[in-house]
Amino acid sequence: MESLLGRKPAQLSGGQRQRVAVGRAIVREPQVFLMDEPLSNLDAKLRVYMRAELKRLQKDIGVTTIYVTHDQVEAMTMADRIAIMDKGILQQLGTPERIYSRPSNTFVAGFIGNPPTNFVEGTLADDGRVETVDFAYPLSDLLLKLARGASSKELVLGIRPQDVLVSRESNSPSGAIEAEIFTTEPLGDSTILDLKIGETRMKAVVSPDFHGEMGSRVWTQFRPDRVYVFDKKTGTAME
Amino acid sequence: MESLLGRKPAQLSGGQRQRVAVGRAIVREPQVFLMDEPLSNLDAKLRVYMRAELKRLQKDIGVTTIYVTHDQVEAMTMADRIAIMDKGILQQLGTPERIYSRPSNTFVAGFIGNPPTNFVEGTLADDGRVETVDFAYPLSDLLLKLARGASSKELVLGIRPQDVLVSRESNSPSGAIEAEIFTTEPLGDSTILDLKIGETRMKAVVSPDFHGEMGSRVWTQFRPDRVYVFDKKTGTAME
Repeated sequence: MESLLGRKPAQLSGGQRQRVAVGRAIVREPQVFLMDEPLSNLDAKLRVYMRAELKRLQKDIGVTTIYVTHDQVEAMTMADRIAIMDKGILQQLGTPERIYSRPSNTFVAGFIGNPPTNFVEGTLADDGRVETVDFAYPLSDLLLKLARGASSKELVLGIRPQDVLVSRESNSPSGAIEAEIFTTEPLGDSTILDLKIGETRMKAVVSPDFHGEMGSRVWTQFRPDRVYVFDKKTGTAME
Repeated sequence: MESLLGRKPAQLSGGQRQRVAVGRAIVREPQVFLMDEPLSNLDAKLRVYMRAELKRLQKDIGVTTIYVTHDQVEAMTMADRIAIMDKGILQQLGTPERIYSRPSNTFVAGFIGNPPTNFVEGTLADDGRVETVDFAYPLSDLLLKLARGASSKELVLGIRPQDVLVSRESNSPSGAIEAEIFTTEPLGDSTILDLKIGETRMKAVVSPDFHGEMGSRVWTQFRPDRVYVFDKKTGTAME
């Protein structure tokens, strides 16, 4: 920052002013930092850079920091613990890993992760399958036990797009659900498939090598240990 | 849309107005659609949804569409061919796959892909290695041949964060470069590492299972067939 010492505030860029502001906060040696969307005015590239800088700075100084953001990636990447709020009500408090892998309700599951978690409503049948409009999904023993703790038989399945396995093989693997490719969205390092299972829409993340034409048939499976079950009435995860 | 027929424009949401506007354009049966940032006013969730809808609609109608956006994800996911412009000058024209895997210059390589491509400046030595401030990288035979076509020995290496392989093994694999973890940024489905090789900063994308403390040492390698070489003076990719 030394090269900027001769400048007036108006001669600094947004990122430079941001760093000056953080510097002014640090020299006062506060017992806690309170940051409210500190990166929201920066462009995308600088925001990603400053995110890592701030995180490292916080670790080096070792001062407790409360950081407010509506950017789920910022929350995941910067926090030791995340408190997720919805309309002023705490939804979940936990480490980023836990919030991602064990969301406490549909709000958290839909908010954290990209693309968002797929939700499919269904009814728990006596044979242990969840019957949705377009398919029946047999719950694992563990999930079935959890699902029986719900307030009724009305459930919501949650499946992250990363946990939808897609195969082009025409001989359907056992338990696989037939789907149609609605659109493919290549990102370079991965491809998002927008699938239709009957009228149910579901996104899947596949390898960039996956080649599937729009309108072609594929077979999908869900990673069984990664499927979430929520109580439809309350939205709460069954754990 | 039928349920909206009785409403005035002001009673429609942003996404609904958007769909009405597209509908009005379609019924005129134009020979070409010209769309200028059509999704920019929508919130993130609706934008992702409309992206797939518009893409599918365009395929169904089969009308040539020219679509202007500054959102690189929209460009990658929606286009058959992308024309990347910088200050009014065409930088590259090609399929999303080609633009991602064979960017024509540093501008394209830095713009497409997330996190952005790592760039490291260096000088081509007689032994075929690129000597940077902090490490020397031996070019493959193919890259060396390409690098010799540059206007001088001053080069820029480009390595995507997805192509930086990171190992915690303390017995350094042959050719691996020692680095320090500056920060870790868990995203849930993957983790971004911000690495320091001496004073050189480099991002790597690793599996969410990777556990590395800030400040700890790791060893990095680059996927040899995925390293880009650019002419430093012109920024052009050597192909």
